[in-house]
Amino acid sequence: MDYHFLFEVALILFCTKLLSMMCKKIRMPQVVGALFAGLLIGPAMLGILEANDFLDKISEIGVIALMFAAGLETDIQELKKTGKASFVIAVMGVLIPLAGGYFIASMFNVGPDVFLQNLFIDVILTATSVSITVETLKEMGKLSTKSGNAILGAALIDDILGIIALTVITSVADSSVNISIVLFKIVAFFALSLVVGIFLYKRFNHWFSRYDRDKKRFPIMAFVFCLNYAFIAEHFFGVADITGAFFAGLVLSNTRRVTYVASRMEIVSFMLLSPVFFANIGLKVVLPPMSKELIIFSTLLIIVAVLSKILGCAAGAKASGFSTHDSICIGTGMISRGEVALIVAAKGVALGLMNSEFYAPIIITVVVTTVITPILLKIVYKGTVDETVNNNLADFYQAPEDLENLAQKLSENDR
Amino acid sequence: MDYHFLFEVALILFCTKLLSMMCKKIRMPQVVGALFAGLLIGPAMLGILEANDFLDKISEIGVIALMFAAGLETDIQELKKTGKASFVIAVMGVLIPLAGGYFIASMFNVGPDVFLQNLFIDVILTATSVSITVETLKEMGKLSTKSGNAILGAALIDDILGIIALTVITSVADSSVNISIVLFKIVAFFALSLVVGIFLYKRFNHWFSRYDRDKKRFPIMAFVFCLNYAFIAEHFFGVADITGAFFAGLVLSNTRRVTYVASRMEIVSFMLLSPVFFANIGLKVVLPPMSKELIIFSTLLIIVAVLSKILGCAAGAKASGFSTHDSICIGTGMISRGEVALIVAAKGVALGLMNSEFYAPIIITVVVTTVITPILLKIVYKGTVDETVNNNLADFYQAPEDLENLAQKLSENDR
Repeated sequence: MDYHFLFEVALILFCTKLLSMMCKKIRMPQVVGALFAGLLIGPAMLGILEANDFLDKISEIGVIALMFAAGLETDIQELKKTGKASFVIAVMGVLIPLAGGYFIASMFNVGPDVFLQNLFIDVILTATSVSITVETLKEMGKLSTKSGNAILGAALIDDILGIIALTVITSVADSSVNISIVLFKIVAFFALSLVVGIFLYKRFNHWFSRYDRDKKRFPIMAFVFCLNYAFIAEHFFGVADITGAFFAGLVLSNTRRVTYVASRMEIVSFMLLSPVFFANIGLKVVLPPMSKELIIFSTLLIIVAVLSKILGCAAGAKASGFSTHDSICIGTGMISRGEVALIVAAKGVALGLMNSEFYAPIIITVVVTTVITPILLKIVYKGTVDETVNNNLADFYQAPEDLENLAQKLSENDR
Repeated sequence: MDYHFLFEVALILFCTKLLSMMCKKIRMPQVVGALFAGLLIGPAMLGILEANDFLDKISEIGVIALMFAAGLETDIQELKKTGKASFVIAVMGVLIPLAGGYFIASMFNVGPDVFLQNLFIDVILTATSVSITVETLKEMGKLSTKSGNAILGAALIDDILGIIALTVITSVADSSVNISIVLFKIVAFFALSLVVGIFLYKRFNHWFSRYDRDKKRFPIMAFVFCLNYAFIAEHFFGVADITGAFFAGLVLSNTRRVTYVASRMEIVSFMLLSPVFFANIGLKVVLPPMSKELIIFSTLLIIVAVLSKILGCAAGAKASGFSTHDSICIGTGMISRGEVALIVAAKGVALGLMNSEFYAPIIITVVVTTVITPILLKIVYKGTVDETVNNNLADFYQAPEDLENLAQKLSENDR
């Protein structure tokens, strides 16, 4: 065995923590530091590390753990309330960027038969990357607010719409893909989730109630359920694994041991999984040289990507009865396009669905939107009156650590 | 990406926890359950899972975390006291099995030029696998006892002796290996460890003291140091990575934040790393069909492997002034031969250093010694008068969990 991966993990943990701490000092979201760490040590800058299979897999477990934790913290009642609004926000947040993106793409990519190509570039840029926003909202303690719930719901629906849109385009180019089967699978997944969710919620709650104290087996079995459901979503239904993980979290969110399970998941995340996930996004960025025309295209693409998403989502939110300020927060939370866009773009080039020269602009757009989302989120949420739904849960997460400090001090006095 | 690894991790976590719980119920060490889980789902029995690169890497981080935790829990003063005894135990625990193993091997493997072959089989079986013993002692709260310390020290020295012995044999067969360079590197590693250890102990302690409460950055940076030192040990000095990880733990064992760091490491271990490590040992077991003669050989090999290790180590312990009961405990703790033997054996067959028909008996011996060690350890330690050195540390690890329970109950009443 080559032991280099030990050094890789150590380097990632070190750089992400160091840059996160620096970001915290200048009052920027810590997740920005973690993203920069990946850019810094990756091929985009210093070139010490490259993305590899091992880091990809740890990252995948990392984003699953992240979405599972988001599910655990979500108030189902509140999510139901914002459900309709989330749907409107997601649809508007797909339609407006679709229109804007197609317009920009067709300005630069002209010729016969470019309709599909332009649509493909366009669709890649519609899907919101929920993970960055979730981490930022968590960091700011805003995940459980009404607007936080709306973003979470909308981003998840956005994921589904993204799959459908991509499938439609791919099915036009590739006759082996059947759009109706894809749609059927998505519907089947949600039907299954409802049945499995109700059944397992009861089983878990019953099991948790049989013991009068927290047991290690609780978070382990919860994690097993989360990983399995993420696998099932992706493997059997073609739905994103993070959607499966979020549902698994939702199922357990009302059970008795949710605080203990969430605290254990959080520790595994910050000690290993999350840093690798965020750094890995930066590690995947490789920038080819670009012509002047492509630089202009990139700049316009970024502007359109950011503005159309804010406008679309904010309009959806406003139409659903949110205040103007909340609507802007929601629109901002949906800006980030994530690593999925990178993967799809690479696949598109390989399949001939996309001209390879458009690869760099897409990468730049993904990187810029990913990095500015947490920064903008922090700005727009600043000075928000606390309209918390169940923030006491988030506050409580700090408590065990304080108690441990106390216990440690007591024990130190004993010695 | 193929998402099958999500299912693999989930299956391992589920089976190891389930079988560990069963073992606990019938008062067997839980680690036996985790080992059996790997055998059960691996090629040896059900064949659902196979060892692969991803699981191997997670396992490696798992055993590094395990040895790091053992280092954190070790009392350096006590280790120094038992240092001389550990050395005697390790040397005796290598010499007696060497003599016994060679005798058995030369009874069955006859012919010209078999001297080196027999010596190779022999050497494979001398190296103690410290991880199983550490986990069992931790589970029983005996890691910080005088005998626990002696076992820990002896097993680590045993590892070094094993490397030297293997290098000597390989250098006879392969002229590119230079034994004096290997020895020089080992000495250089320990000299470096002393310097680095003293320097970093002061740096870490100074850093830890600058804050009045526990910070997430403490366990993360401690983990970074551990991973890096494990990598340096293996990559630059040819010393086992787990030895490096143990030293890293030792360096931090006297710092102010050791309780917090250890508790965070423990959670990452039980939530993900440890189960994969123990199950992976079982996953690596593939049993070829065997002749009647080889079955007899295997049986004798197991008996000699177990008895010679107990006798050798117990004699060393007794000579160093341990009580008879403690000596037996120490000898028992040294029985297990681990996954290293499996890897070296496979490499030996590939290099032509070992006849492939001896592969199966070695696997069986490794499996049997690995599984019986925790069981025997539990038996011999039963009814031990508590001669604890710093068991209060181990006891304390339970405290935060109790406090969290308390906090949870309080918060539930609030709602």
